[in-house]
Amino acid sequence: MEIVVRQLEAGDYDKGFLGLLSQLTTVGDIDRAKFEERLKEVSSPDYYIAVAEDAASGKLLGTAALVIERKFIHGCGKVGHIEDVVVDAAARGQRLGQRLVEELVSVSRSRGCYKVILDCAEHNVAFYEKCGLTRKEVQMVQYLDR
Amino acid sequence: MEIVVRQLEAGDYDKGFLGLLSQLTTVGDIDRAKFEERLKEVSSPDYYIAVAEDAASGKLLGTAALVIERKFIHGCGKVGHIEDVVVDAAARGQRLGQRLVEELVSVSRSRGCYKVILDCAEHNVAFYEKCGLTRKEVQMVQYLDR
Repeated sequence: MEIVVRQLEAGDYDKGFLGLLSQLTTVGDIDRAKFEERLKEVSSPDYYIAVAEDAASGKLLGTAALVIERKFIHGCGKVGHIEDVVVDAAARGQRLGQRLVEELVSVSRSRGCYKVILDCAEHNVAFYEKCGLTRKEVQMVQYLDR
Repeated sequence: MEIVVRQLEAGDYDKGFLGLLSQLTTVGDIDRAKFEERLKEVSSPDYYIAVAEDAASGKLLGTAALVIERKFIHGCGKVGHIEDVVVDAAARGQRLGQRLVEELVSVSRSRGCYKVILDCAEHNVAFYEKCGLTRKEVQMVQYLDR
């Protein structure tokens, strides 16, 4: 199977991008206009949303997002945050997740980040270790009732 | 002591902002032009860098940064990332850290985030629990040799 890893684009609304994300968590109702608005907002040097597409079918089989944070520490350094990594249930075991993460690490490096970080469940630590990351700290969360 | 919590501004270069950050980690040489350039880059709806200023002396005693991430999941939701929280060694024990974190949680809520997250060392978990956060996942890191 030939897989192309590339940046998210508008046509991916019809290639199953949101259905893929729904395998990760709640996506909700996002119509084409809302999708395109958010895509425009993240079309910036501080984002890179990668997708893995099956070249034969044109269907998306995986995605992972990178957000670049601009800091003052480390000489006004930048940090890449990897978020929302998901591979289609039917396409697991083909190292697509690893290819997506490695792509985002590569983009982080080329955009001048001094490190890449992410948060994951305990049972995914071994997967991210295979991608070249190591265990560091504790993630804390507060959910907001707006 | 009267403390004002407000957003970072250009004049904070002279009020000890970088010296404060150097109590957290390496800051390096950042001249006024570089500081102002980064400040301009983070003068956006997706950042809020809070500082705590001693009203009497005009000296900064603490800072904490918020980066807002725009996602597709959760109905094109937004997540606040809290980063680089530091309180001057001489001003600890006055709940300044808690005030700064609470300010960033409040800004996250007002800007429509559905959650706020951060990464911290194990020995700071109890502090962030006092701020209203709870333990969630594992943070992973990869340092990049550019």
